[in-house]
Amino acid sequence: MKALEDKILAEGMLLPGGVLNVGRFLNQQIDTVFLKEIGAEIARLFEDSGATKILTVEASGIAVAVAAGMAMDLPVIFAKKSRTANIDGDVYTSLVYSFTHDRENHIMVSKTYLPAGEKILIVDDFLAHGSALNGLIAIAEDADCEVVGCCAAIEKGFQMGGDNLRARGYRVESLAIIDQMDETGIVFRLQ
Amino acid sequence: MKALEDKILAEGMLLPGGVLNVGRFLNQQIDTVFLKEIGAEIARLFEDSGATKILTVEASGIAVAVAAGMAMDLPVIFAKKSRTANIDGDVYTSLVYSFTHDRENHIMVSKTYLPAGEKILIVDDFLAHGSALNGLIAIAEDADCEVVGCCAAIEKGFQMGGDNLRARGYRVESLAIIDQMDETGIVFRLQ
Repeated sequence: MKALEDKILAEGMLLPGGVLNVGRFLNQQIDTVFLKEIGAEIARLFEDSGATKILTVEASGIAVAVAAGMAMDLPVIFAKKSRTANIDGDVYTSLVYSFTHDRENHIMVSKTYLPAGEKILIVDDFLAHGSALNGLIAIAEDADCEVVGCCAAIEKGFQMGGDNLRARGYRVESLAIIDQMDETGIVFRLQ
Repeated sequence: MKALEDKILAEGMLLPGGVLNVGRFLNQQIDTVFLKEIGAEIARLFEDSGATKILTVEASGIAVAVAAGMAMDLPVIFAKKSRTANIDGDVYTSLVYSFTHDRENHIMVSKTYLPAGEKILIVDDFLAHGSALNGLIAIAEDADCEVVGCCAAIEKGFQMGGDNLRARGYRVESLAIIDQMDETGIVFRLQ
């Protein structure tokens, strides 16, 4: 998605430690006009996927997943990182390591929202090592649902999470894939 | 908003301890078709507010705030509950007690996204005791921004957070206000 690559170049910031900060338009602050375009592009990519529900994980995945859900008229489920009074009954759970927070979280989804047989499109803002996506796939498959696709707005191709999933046979489409990123600039993968 | 009251009656569940679970359409699972209607209603209510940015707090506020932002073409900022590698520089912070999680969180927003003079519309999914909203108001006012309105999808009127804010002069509009809620049913405030 050329518009997203341009946006990353114009508004993203490279921070020490390999962090790409897109807080000006995707995290912290969300450019909702642009977010609609992101949702429309995800809908275009996965219109033939047969998806019946979108699955993401709180917190920063929610905006992208909701934009996709609105564009596709599909419900969005978000996995939670802690059990709250709002989570009812039995849950599917998976252990996910967050590099951003440097800690492990059990993510969980109430079984109510994942009946067997749903066709799940997994959506997140970032795909790097793939820890969150792997956790979401595990939850969907535990629930006897089919993962029909995975989509991140921004994939860090050099951290291999996306390519590892592709090698396992999953359909992974990211709107922008960064294959190299350092003080000299950002190299996007041709798609 | 009559459609939201009907949705609460049809799909909400009253749990022990005064918890209203709306996980089927607003938390956990989000009915994105209905969420668009929520966004449009917030836009209608606050079209004359002069708001320049929407402020919410992760995680479950994000969907409602994004829907409002899309309907109003306004950027959405979400306060975070923990400092991550993505948060740049100085932050405005406030201490918020979460009844749902039974713990205190420092919520924070990078100063970058709240320059002085912005007109802030605060949006959240729930308003009960008002702890989150008070924290968000404190952050906006610390930043020398003006709070032009507060909007929750669902307000628990009997927990007084909304009315306390109204008494302090804030414009608070909730799409559905529950004044009583027990095993005999739910009583909505006439608006």
